[in-house]
Amino acid sequence: MLSNYIDLEKGILENYTENVIRRASDMLNFYQDNEALEKMIKNGNPTIYEVYAVTHEGGGELSYAITILHPGKVGNEYFMTKGHYHEKRDRGELYIGLKGNGLLLMQKGEEIRWIEMERGKIVYVPPYFAHRSINTGNGNFVFLAIYPGDAGHDYGSIAEKGFAKIVIEENGNYAVKDNPRWK
Amino acid sequence: MLSNYIDLEKGILENYTENVIRRASDMLNFYQDNEALEKMIKNGNPTIYEVYAVTHEGGGELSYAITILHPGKVGNEYFMTKGHYHEKRDRGELYIGLKGNGLLLMQKGEEIRWIEMERGKIVYVPPYFAHRSINTGNGNFVFLAIYPGDAGHDYGSIAEKGFAKIVIEENGNYAVKDNPRWK
Repeated sequence: MLSNYIDLEKGILENYTENVIRRASDMLNFYQDNEALEKMIKNGNPTIYEVYAVTHEGGGELSYAITILHPGKVGNEYFMTKGHYHEKRDRGELYIGLKGNGLLLMQKGEEIRWIEMERGKIVYVPPYFAHRSINTGNGNFVFLAIYPGDAGHDYGSIAEKGFAKIVIEENGNYAVKDNPRWK
Repeated sequence: MLSNYIDLEKGILENYTENVIRRASDMLNFYQDNEALEKMIKNGNPTIYEVYAVTHEGGGELSYAITILHPGKVGNEYFMTKGHYHEKRDRGELYIGLKGNGLLLMQKGEEIRWIEMERGKIVYVPPYFAHRSINTGNGNFVFLAIYPGDAGHDYGSIAEKGFAKIVIEENGNYAVKDNPRWK
């Protein structure tokens, strides 16, 4: 699609070509507290995040997506995206915060980094880094991502191993802790 | 650079790694009215546009830049960027309007298109298209561009041949006309 419109205040993308809604039931085994998640699923199965994308899948092309990550916690762990590597590992990605507050967690082998996101913050995810977004605020956390059209998504590695860190609420603030299930 | 900040209202990029300022004297032979341009150069040589970029030049990486295109005309032709092809012709680019009003002119062989830009407008420049921005408004026209790190810039072809269309003011509005000097 050649021409489109994004509401830079509200973070709404018109004319998307693909969208994904992830509910609690789509996030089985992603959180530490499976019991809390199952309770949540029975109790209305809320939306965790929504992605609206315009894709151009050729090599050398660019795709872009708005993610709306809802506020909430599973146990004491903040709502987050599944997170992924790029199928082509050497593809980077650019994130631009539009609304709310969150973290961008990045991991390559044993190397892990996290960066606070807010409106106007631009974060570059270099090639080879898996990346996950976490909503540490009270409202929607909304961001725009731009990525090479042929990057692809590899969710499998993260679904199996997770990230080396988890992000929980502790005394009203976020805290980044070692993931007890990380090996 | 991993983390940066952009003022999404004012269109100001912090911590850029490269910048270019193009003054009237850098635009010789780009406009129809060379006499008007030379007068302008003698008369203060104003800035036509400024580019502030953060680059990551590897294949699979992404670079980004803010362009501030000043308002004005050379004769009846609006201030514009030089315009370029990508050195690697098959690389696309994404434009996001932040401020002001302009046109994005795109050309591939004999095929030419133009799209109005304004805040929130997202335009995808597909691979193989040369692209130029034109300020058709009264204030700065500011946009964010994201492009593959290895795209490269080829200004030579445009400097020699120009685009097939020029954009002039006519009765207070912009008009897109055939370029009398095209090939």
